[in-house]
Amino acid sequence: MKKGKMIVTPWEVKGDLDYNKLIRNFGVHPLKKLPGIFEKNVLFRRGIVFAHRDVQRILEAVSKKEKFAMMTGLMPSGKFHFGHMLVAEQIILYQKLGAKVYVAVADVESYNSRGQSLEDSRKIAKEEYIKNYIALGLKPKNCEIYFQSDRSKDGEKAGAYYRLQNLLARHATFNEFKGVYGDMSPGKMVSSLLQASDMLHSQMKEFGGSDKGIPVVVPVGIDQDPHLRIARDLGRRIKTQEFIPLSSTYHKFIPGLSGGKMSSSEENSYIALTDKPEEVKKKINKYAFSGGRKTLDEHKKHGGNPDVDVSYQYLNAFFEPNDKKLNEIYKDYKSGKMTTGELKKYTIEKINAFLKKHQARMKKITEKEISKYVK
Amino acid sequence: MKKGKMIVTPWEVKGDLDYNKLIRNFGVHPLKKLPGIFEKNVLFRRGIVFAHRDVQRILEAVSKKEKFAMMTGLMPSGKFHFGHMLVAEQIILYQKLGAKVYVAVADVESYNSRGQSLEDSRKIAKEEYIKNYIALGLKPKNCEIYFQSDRSKDGEKAGAYYRLQNLLARHATFNEFKGVYGDMSPGKMVSSLLQASDMLHSQMKEFGGSDKGIPVVVPVGIDQDPHLRIARDLGRRIKTQEFIPLSSTYHKFIPGLSGGKMSSSEENSYIALTDKPEEVKKKINKYAFSGGRKTLDEHKKHGGNPDVDVSYQYLNAFFEPNDKKLNEIYKDYKSGKMTTGELKKYTIEKINAFLKKHQARMKKITEKEISKYVK
Repeated sequence: MKKGKMIVTPWEVKGDLDYNKLIRNFGVHPLKKLPGIFEKNVLFRRGIVFAHRDVQRILEAVSKKEKFAMMTGLMPSGKFHFGHMLVAEQIILYQKLGAKVYVAVADVESYNSRGQSLEDSRKIAKEEYIKNYIALGLKPKNCEIYFQSDRSKDGEKAGAYYRLQNLLARHATFNEFKGVYGDMSPGKMVSSLLQASDMLHSQMKEFGGSDKGIPVVVPVGIDQDPHLRIARDLGRRIKTQEFIPLSSTYHKFIPGLSGGKMSSSEENSYIALTDKPEEVKKKINKYAFSGGRKTLDEHKKHGGNPDVDVSYQYLNAFFEPNDKKLNEIYKDYKSGKMTTGELKKYTIEKINAFLKKHQARMKKITEKEISKYVK
Repeated sequence: MKKGKMIVTPWEVKGDLDYNKLIRNFGVHPLKKLPGIFEKNVLFRRGIVFAHRDVQRILEAVSKKEKFAMMTGLMPSGKFHFGHMLVAEQIILYQKLGAKVYVAVADVESYNSRGQSLEDSRKIAKEEYIKNYIALGLKPKNCEIYFQSDRSKDGEKAGAYYRLQNLLARHATFNEFKGVYGDMSPGKMVSSLLQASDMLHSQMKEFGGSDKGIPVVVPVGIDQDPHLRIARDLGRRIKTQEFIPLSSTYHKFIPGLSGGKMSSSEENSYIALTDKPEEVKKKINKYAFSGGRKTLDEHKKHGGNPDVDVSYQYLNAFFEPNDKKLNEIYKDYKSGKMTTGELKKYTIEKINAFLKKHQARMKKITEKEISKYVK
C-alpha cells in the first residue's frame, strides 16, 4: 500500500491513518471540549475519543438527568485485549452517567461474515469479553448484554427486535448499501440491517423506550461509522414509530504492538488482559514498536519520537492517568533524557500492576455472576 | 403483450398461460396419478394441482403415517375469494391427512413490497382469511397460523425462526436472487429469506421437528416457485442442522371473472365468499367470460368452448364435484345443446347454494374461535 493511503471499512483497516481526513471523508464532526464529567476520563481528555455525530443530545440528557441509552457491539473473536478495553471503558463511563447499557454480541455478523459458529461466539463472548467487562467495573444494573441470534426469552421483545430489522429493509436500496460499504453480500446486508435494529431498538416501548424514541449514543471505532450511517438513515425513514437520530462517538485505533492494527488472530500484535507478567515483559521488549533511535548515543543526542512509540500510546490511553507525569515522559523521551529501555520498563511495570489487580478480580467472577448480565 | 407470451413471477402474472411451458421453465415435474386419498379431491383428480417437486416424500409420510408438516402463506389483501379458497382446500386436505399445518401471514412481505401496515394486515388476515378457513373446515388442532412480524410469544421459538432467516443469508448470493427473481430490492430479498425460514423452520426441534428435519410440503401457485427454489437451495447449504429438501405442489390459476387474473384490488374480477346471492348473479351474468357464440343460433349450431368458459372453470374446480355431471355439462356445452344462459344459471345456483351454507357457518365464528388458530 502506498504511503499516505488508507483503507478504513468495518472489515478492513490499513494504511497510514489520517484522522482529520477520516472526519472529512465520513462527514463526522471533531469532538470539542466536553463537560468536566467527560473530561475526567483520559479517553475524552486526551482526544482518543475524537469525533462524533449529534453528541450534544447526549450531553443534554446527562445534564438534565433524562433517560438515555448507550448501545455498542462486540465481535466475539480471540482474546480480550487493549483494543477491547477501550470500548469497555466507554461503556462503563456511560453506565456511570446514567445510561441504560445495551451490548450486542454480533454472533449473526460473525457467522455471516466469517462463518464462526454461534456456539463458539457464545463461549468467547462470556469467557473473554463479559468476564473482562465485569472485572473492569461494569455493573449488572441497567445493563443488558444479548446475542443477536437470540435476542430475548420474552417473545414480545424478540418479536419487536427482529420485526424492526425486517421492516427497515423496505426503506433501504442496494445502491445505498454499495455506496456506504463498498463490498456487499446478502449476509453482510442482513447483518447491517440487524445492526440498525441493534442501535435503534432500545428506543421502542418494548425495551423501555417510547413512541417518540429516546436518545441513544453508540461509541465505536471510526471504522464502524458506515453501520451508523445506514441505521440513522433508515431510522429516519421508517414510520412505524418515531426514532430520535442516533448519536455516536468515534475513537482512534489503539495500535498493535508493531504499530499496525491490533488483531485477535495475531497473538504478537496485542497484549491480552489475561497475559502473565513475563509475557507482557517479553511482548513489550521484543515487539513493541519504538520511537527511539538506532543507538543509545544517537537517542541521547537527538531524542526519540513518543508520537509513534507504542509503549507511550499505551500509557497515554490507559496506564498513566496522571497528566503531569505523562507530560514529563513525553518531554524526557523526546529530548533523549529517557531511553527506550526506560520507557519500556516503566510501561511494563504499569501494565503489570494493572493486570495483577485485574486478574485477581477476574478469578472471582463466577458463571452465576456472568448470567446476571446476559439476558 | 404479444400473443403466446407470458410473465409469471411472484409479483406479476400476465399473458397467455402455458402450463407445460411453465413446468419446463421452472424445472418442476408434472403431477402423475396419486393415491386414492388424494384423487378423491377434485383439485388433484382434475389436474388443477398439476405439478410438484419431491412430492413422493409426502406420499410416503402419509402412507406410513409418519410425522410431516404442511406450510403455506397468505398475503392479506382485500376480500377472500375463489383463488384463496383453492389454497384453503389444500390446507384442509393436508390437515386431514395428518400434517401439522403452518400458515404464515406474510405481513412483513406485505409491508416491504406494498407498504401495507402491520395493523391492516392483521385485521384482514383475521376477519377475511382465517374466518373463511374455519368456515371451510380448518380445525384448530395441529394448526398454527402466525404473523411473520410476530412469530411467537415464546422467545425460544421467535429466536429460532428469525435466527434461521439471518443465518440463511450467509449462504445466498446477490446473483442468485437476481437469477431467480429478476427484479430485486433489499425489502424483497429480506422477505425472501424470511419466507425461506417460513418454509424450513417447522423442521427444527423448537417447533416439534428434529435435528434431521421432517418432510414439509408447500402447496402454492406456480408463480410462487422462485421462493421454493431459494428455500430449497439455502436449506441444503446451511449446516446448523439437517433440513429435508422441501416438497411442493403447484396449482393452476383460477381465472378471474373476465378470464384474466383474479385480483383483490379489482372487485369485478372475483367472487368473494361474502358476496350476496344477487351479487353473484350479477357478476356471473355480467362479467363472467363466456365460451359461447355471439348468437343463440350460432351457439346451437356450432357449440361453445367450455375450456375457456369461466363459469365452467368454477364448476370444474369447486362447485360440481360429480364427474359424470360435469362431463355431461362439458359435452352439452360443447355441442351447443346447453346455452351460455343455462350454464351461467346452473353455476349461479351452485355457487349460491354453497355460499348460503358457508356464510351461515361464517356468522357463528367468534373472535374467541379465531384466537384458537392464531398463536
